[in-house]
Amino acid sequence: MPSLAESLAAAADSVTAELDRLLPVGDGPERRLREAMRYATLEGGKRLRPFLVIQTARLFNVGDTSSRRVAAAVEMVHCYSLVHDDLPALDNDDLRRGRATVHKQFDEATAILAGDALLTRAFEVLASPDTHGDPQVRCTLVAELASAAGDFGMVAGQMLDLLAEKLQPDLPEITRLQQMKTGRLITFACEAGAVLGKAHSRQRQALRAYAHDIGLAFQIADDLLDAEGDPATVGKAVRKDAGAGKATFVSLLGADRARAQARMLVDQAVAHLDGFEGEADPLREAARFIVERQS
Amino acid sequence: MPSLAESLAAAADSVTAELDRLLPVGDGPERRLREAMRYATLEGGKRLRPFLVIQTARLFNVGDTSSRRVAAAVEMVHCYSLVHDDLPALDNDDLRRGRATVHKQFDEATAILAGDALLTRAFEVLASPDTHGDPQVRCTLVAELASAAGDFGMVAGQMLDLLAEKLQPDLPEITRLQQMKTGRLITFACEAGAVLGKAHSRQRQALRAYAHDIGLAFQIADDLLDAEGDPATVGKAVRKDAGAGKATFVSLLGADRARAQARMLVDQAVAHLDGFEGEADPLREAARFIVERQS
Repeated sequence: MPSLAESLAAAADSVTAELDRLLPVGDGPERRLREAMRYATLEGGKRLRPFLVIQTARLFNVGDTSSRRVAAAVEMVHCYSLVHDDLPALDNDDLRRGRATVHKQFDEATAILAGDALLTRAFEVLASPDTHGDPQVRCTLVAELASAAGDFGMVAGQMLDLLAEKLQPDLPEITRLQQMKTGRLITFACEAGAVLGKAHSRQRQALRAYAHDIGLAFQIADDLLDAEGDPATVGKAVRKDAGAGKATFVSLLGADRARAQARMLVDQAVAHLDGFEGEADPLREAARFIVERQS
Repeated sequence: MPSLAESLAAAADSVTAELDRLLPVGDGPERRLREAMRYATLEGGKRLRPFLVIQTARLFNVGDTSSRRVAAAVEMVHCYSLVHDDLPALDNDDLRRGRATVHKQFDEATAILAGDALLTRAFEVLASPDTHGDPQVRCTLVAELASAAGDFGMVAGQMLDLLAEKLQPDLPEITRLQQMKTGRLITFACEAGAVLGKAHSRQRQALRAYAHDIGLAFQIADDLLDAEGDPATVGKAVRKDAGAGKATFVSLLGADRARAQARMLVDQAVAHLDGFEGEADPLREAARFIVERQS
């Protein structure tokens, strides 16, 4: 059985190759747009969401092409959200994964349009017959990704995050914010394999519960990295939250309690997978990795 | 038979009511996002694309709910593209339809996110069983809207438009730009009715040809309004193209030849509808209206 590092690397390589195929640069002066889309997606990132799609799809013996295409669609949505989040009008970040952000490398207009086009392409990929033979499955994927990423999901979380400095959310409010901002897309990634494999609702529910817990644990770990990490290792600016006076799990709980909370969530996430055998081991290891990672 | 003005008003009212239902403001401080989505969609606009969806759907006896929901989805995509196009990093417009643009009324970050969420919601609406009973039809709609709106369609056209000042495109290049920027979405609007009604490919082809011609005619009329219109009537700033030294149909052909070209395109568009009887009369009248309008 491959190690977690090997499984993560295999998922990352596979989704990067798929993104490369799905995002041709094409002709015409407008290829600048498509170069920006490729810049935003082809390099780096942990590819955690693609890994989750691919591993949950394996639980139900879904074909590789299906899971790889859905993984690429989820990663397009994740990357689009980063491109827009990094813009001057939002988080104003110059650095992402150790490289210039899209609007620094290209320009703001191109970054806005490249994000728009990545989001659009994600739905095109899901709706294509190449992704799954059953159009009902494809419609479910489109509707659920849209719900996860939209104005009651990820984008609402981004809006709340922008308002957080002013609102000074408490712990339940921060939890709700993060559930929307990062949790919903992680949940979609974990449920997509079950949708592709037409899994029982009980299995789908277990994966949703797993996703809920690792999503929050992931965000707490992110806050800890911002509070304690080394920018050279983390690959982006740190201490941004404290600098902005922004409430986070760490500012509200303190680093030690936040760390304990993240570990508790991971134990809980692993327990949700009890109905699965050894084939879910990569998902169990990934949950543990989420709170141990240094970047 | 209702007049064109009555048909346009009926389509506008019907799609506005549908948008109102599909875009609830909801709870939480993030409702600011959803207020911006409603601001961007519920007021004004000619609703030309919804009209085209509704009228082409009537040719094939499609149910009102189906065509109204698809019309709303197309209008969401159109409005999102306007919100992002108006941003300071793109066209930097303060006025749209006689009102403050979304980033002026709210702020830039909210405008970016509201555009993102409208695009996302459009796909959610198309993928929902409420839109059509056959998931194959819904997948086709999702895939074709994404193709029309994406990085080889509308967004590529927006990118080309941004580069136009530098590139100084000639007539074939301007035509290609406008085909992508506005033509593709108009074509989707005209084909959607045929997809919903499972029309013969010959009928679909006729509607596509009609859409191609009215799309270009529409853009030429827009350029003429920019060159010759009164801002109070047009509802937005005019003389922007000439001020920016931007090549347009009018700058390349002159106003008289541009007007003649638009009229020729309209005649051609009407001829493509010869296979339809009187039920296509609203589409024929709409084609003529496109070049006669004053706003």
